[in-house]
Amino acid sequence: MRYAVLGTGIVGRTLAAKLGSLDHDVVIGTRDPEATLARSEPDAMGNEPFAAWHAAHPAVQLEPFEEAAAHGEAVVNTTSGTASLDALNSAGGANLSGKVLIDVANPLDFSHGMPPVLNPGNTDSLGEQIQRSFPDSRVVKTLNTVNCAVMVEPGRVPGAHNVFVSGDDSGAKRHVTELLVSFGWPAGSVIDLGGIETARGAEMLLPIWLRLFGLLGHADFNFHIQGAR
Amino acid sequence: MRYAVLGTGIVGRTLAAKLGSLDHDVVIGTRDPEATLARSEPDAMGNEPFAAWHAAHPAVQLEPFEEAAAHGEAVVNTTSGTASLDALNSAGGANLSGKVLIDVANPLDFSHGMPPVLNPGNTDSLGEQIQRSFPDSRVVKTLNTVNCAVMVEPGRVPGAHNVFVSGDDSGAKRHVTELLVSFGWPAGSVIDLGGIETARGAEMLLPIWLRLFGLLGHADFNFHIQGAR
Repeated sequence: MRYAVLGTGIVGRTLAAKLGSLDHDVVIGTRDPEATLARSEPDAMGNEPFAAWHAAHPAVQLEPFEEAAAHGEAVVNTTSGTASLDALNSAGGANLSGKVLIDVANPLDFSHGMPPVLNPGNTDSLGEQIQRSFPDSRVVKTLNTVNCAVMVEPGRVPGAHNVFVSGDDSGAKRHVTELLVSFGWPAGSVIDLGGIETARGAEMLLPIWLRLFGLLGHADFNFHIQGAR
Repeated sequence: MRYAVLGTGIVGRTLAAKLGSLDHDVVIGTRDPEATLARSEPDAMGNEPFAAWHAAHPAVQLEPFEEAAAHGEAVVNTTSGTASLDALNSAGGANLSGKVLIDVANPLDFSHGMPPVLNPGNTDSLGEQIQRSFPDSRVVKTLNTVNCAVMVEPGRVPGAHNVFVSGDDSGAKRHVTELLVSFGWPAGSVIDLGGIETARGAEMLLPIWLRLFGLLGHADFNFHIQGAR
């Protein structure tokens, strides 16, 4: 299947590599491919420049957001949450229409220091904002509650643990659940929270996630809902 | 030890009964004891009137907030989160000074319908508001992430699962951790998130908790952080 992964950071790279390893046709979208490839410094997290990663993953094409989204039969938003609506507007509503749009981003604003502020917080969510902005797309919020290494290799976390899906389109949620299973998530680990408004609860897990990350000193942890079944 | 439990709802009753069963001296605080005892209808959740519960728990005294707080060596806030600061102001800062103040409330505003709005959300928390309002008290946020039946009987949820503590006073957190262990929580299940500002993350678990409660149809579930140890 053809996937467009929007965003060239570590989350986008990790998901693109995993999708490629599962024999999907993957394009990464960015604002300006030349600028992305010209960067020669590691990012703030110490990740290698995109060009170095790209050299090791030559099957993944890099395209402007619009071309990438046009190519994909499904689109994955891995851009920084505060920039996601801009990126998706650049991709263009027509290129998202009718498609499964998998939103894994968290709307964390680091501009006021640590801890980051979660916007919009509690009476709205990035997932809902995306669905409202692109009403013909089929938005599914998922995977935002785990580190990207865990997204594609859930066995990094010992024992049973859960991943959530939120969305208004049950066919899109089935698509995403099958994709999660192909990533290694047991089918029983996927909890369908309900409509896209339930993305609020999933996004609001981030503040305690960030605190636990600081406490534990590693990201190979996850929430498990004990008593759920 | 002498405990004041502020609030006559199901959470206050459950914690008061448990504390009494552990041979603590327990007083429940309410705004107007006569009015509380005069109610003859079940509450909105179908719980029996307070007077009926009280008749079955005669060792627990009912007092106005101020007298209850004065009596307690430690104070437990189980009032409705949106009314907690008012209740604590009625209790009086002098009666809270120097004491461990255990805050189990969630600042959920149901006045706009379902789902309730969590206030203040993401840049503040009820736990912090209480600590700021009563700087001489030693506030510990805990237990707000589980149903009251689970608070005092964690074995209702199968398997390992966690309870969080947040607070600025490490002695107060030790006190609360020992209390949790006396309730049946394994010592290893208690995660100290850090200062009282980490109550934000714990309070922000409520929106997904409420959604899971609706999905599962029961409250005998809890979060377990897999990979934490």
